[in-house]
Amino acid sequence: MTNSPHFSFAVTARDGAARTGVIETPRGEIRTPAFMPVGTAGTVKAMLPGTVRELGADIVLGNTYHLMLRPGAERVARLGGLHRFMNWPHPILTDSGGYQVMSLSQLRKIDEQGVTFRSHIDGSKHLLTPERSMEVQLLLGSDIIMVLDECTPFPATFEQAEKSMHLSMRWAERSKAAFARAQSAEKGHALFGIVQGGVYPKLRESSAKALCEIGFDGYAIGGLAVGEGQESMFATVERTTPYLPADRPRYLMGVGKPSDIVGAVLRGVDMFDCVLPTRSGRTGQAFTSEGVLNMRNACHAEDLRPLDCALDCPASRDYSRAYLHHLVKSKEILGSMLLTWHNLAYYQDLMRRVGAAIQAGRLADFANQFTKETVE
Amino acid sequence: MTNSPHFSFAVTARDGAARTGVIETPRGEIRTPAFMPVGTAGTVKAMLPGTVRELGADIVLGNTYHLMLRPGAERVARLGGLHRFMNWPHPILTDSGGYQVMSLSQLRKIDEQGVTFRSHIDGSKHLLTPERSMEVQLLLGSDIIMVLDECTPFPATFEQAEKSMHLSMRWAERSKAAFARAQSAEKGHALFGIVQGGVYPKLRESSAKALCEIGFDGYAIGGLAVGEGQESMFATVERTTPYLPADRPRYLMGVGKPSDIVGAVLRGVDMFDCVLPTRSGRTGQAFTSEGVLNMRNACHAEDLRPLDCALDCPASRDYSRAYLHHLVKSKEILGSMLLTWHNLAYYQDLMRRVGAAIQAGRLADFANQFTKETVE
Repeated sequence: MTNSPHFSFAVTARDGAARTGVIETPRGEIRTPAFMPVGTAGTVKAMLPGTVRELGADIVLGNTYHLMLRPGAERVARLGGLHRFMNWPHPILTDSGGYQVMSLSQLRKIDEQGVTFRSHIDGSKHLLTPERSMEVQLLLGSDIIMVLDECTPFPATFEQAEKSMHLSMRWAERSKAAFARAQSAEKGHALFGIVQGGVYPKLRESSAKALCEIGFDGYAIGGLAVGEGQESMFATVERTTPYLPADRPRYLMGVGKPSDIVGAVLRGVDMFDCVLPTRSGRTGQAFTSEGVLNMRNACHAEDLRPLDCALDCPASRDYSRAYLHHLVKSKEILGSMLLTWHNLAYYQDLMRRVGAAIQAGRLADFANQFTKETVE
Repeated sequence: MTNSPHFSFAVTARDGAARTGVIETPRGEIRTPAFMPVGTAGTVKAMLPGTVRELGADIVLGNTYHLMLRPGAERVARLGGLHRFMNWPHPILTDSGGYQVMSLSQLRKIDEQGVTFRSHIDGSKHLLTPERSMEVQLLLGSDIIMVLDECTPFPATFEQAEKSMHLSMRWAERSKAAFARAQSAEKGHALFGIVQGGVYPKLRESSAKALCEIGFDGYAIGGLAVGEGQESMFATVERTTPYLPADRPRYLMGVGKPSDIVGAVLRGVDMFDCVLPTRSGRTGQAFTSEGVLNMRNACHAEDLRPLDCALDCPASRDYSRAYLHHLVKSKEILGSMLLTWHNLAYYQDLMRRVGAAIQAGRLADFANQFTKETVE
């Protein structure tokens, strides 16, 4: 059932449904639970790649939609692939492009074949099929490739969610076939399937089973964090993970707030990506043990305390809140740099704390305390 | 004649009119010839202060106009001064605020007392006098304080330039008196005078002599690089430096392009500041040994070469021109970060090369070759 001979996952500790583990890839290890900083257009915004690495990130995410439009997948391939392009020699996961096509592009039209859309950059027309998505991700040189799926909108009726899920399953099969034709596994790439089905447990179960039938290196849960709320998201995750193979990594796409991550790890998820720490860093928000601080707020104007002394990160430790307030108010690039840096440090530190709690067999206690102490 | 007991300048080598030297300040040495990166609003834009330091900068410049308006000089003082605020424990020079009042603020009105203006940020009304400029710069905790002057506009008739220069000389006296009343020298601050007089050698001579009469720790040449052209600027510098004391540092304000700096050092200048490397970095321009490259240009789209292998700077060495082109086209913050970093590396490296040429007694050769090889 393992697709890639160059890709493996070993669970190193369990605590209830939660686990720690290590994904081995030709480009290095990914320790789980893992948070993947989002590097949309070939850069984790406002961060040097070396600094992202130093924070403890083993893998970053690249967005197929953005990269296929600019600079273009064929160009990235001619330049030696995405790793070399962005000076990040460690693992990269790319999404399929489907989600951003639906949220960012113009005049999109979805049918059995794929999605036709116009670029939000220059209006040029493109067709994204499961086959083209595989081709683009392979041109980029991605280590973990995602199948093309339709992210079921929220809210959706059972019938809408069912129809959309079935389309995604047919696309998953086509994705797998195209991936196999290109002998991608032999070349060191891994392919993840994506469970859909809205907030309907029956559909999630059926989607998970369909994907297992096809067989993937890992399994993602898609279509969540789209407005259903944390309780409903947790319930859906809880009703999905039991149907996913225990010996494959599980990835909750686009999630989330710190408490979302803690709750999802508790329910058996291993991997996460989210723009929150990076995007918030550019809009003046800081994730701290006191909760989210809005650095634009005048209450910080003469506060000499750093953001968070407990974090071993210069951005969290060496600059006063007063200074960060000034930078944010003055729209200085350094404000985005320092807050993004700090937020990613907070997220990576959270993953380490969650992993340590699992290894100590006390994740439930950790999660309870975390929820109590953290105001989001 | 030395104003500050905590401030000294020693010439370490001479080559024609050029010299290398060391300025000692309570916050550390400034090796000359020195380029001071501009940290307008308490940040060298898009740079971490530690990185600015690593490039070899001994001193940065802060803008009094920006800082007095936001976050305010009194607030910076309450927060422990500008060095602590911006996490830069090394020397800082602040300008007087006069230049930016005239170029950035609204409804400015200049008279004998000073300049009345409205903030470009919130429209609030302010009066900047020589006395208030000293007060603001002392509140910021600046190491090298500049007298308030009027930057004579270009072009100006002899009569206009003369009148303006005389006003600046009266303000220089008032600045010195206010600086002395606050016992600033005893507290470790230094005060520089500013020569004005447009492009008129007689006025420059008379201004320089007037300032020497008052007595300053260093002497700046102001009112240049305002449109007069390089030849005229060099001619004016050449007719000014002979009237400045050889045992005091000389500072050419707001200059300039690499060839401007080389030519001015050749004519006896020791210190420079300019927004060019930082501002150009944010608009996609790179200073290299091949001249200025516009990274927006499509010719870089598939160029795998780094900006400049000769520079010992990650930004110059570890990223392809193709990637930088992509970042600039995509308006990514990392593009501004890397190009600013590279440009400052180029400038600091240039200062080292110029200093080495002086010490080897071959600055004239260096300058000739530099002018021949560098297209600006």
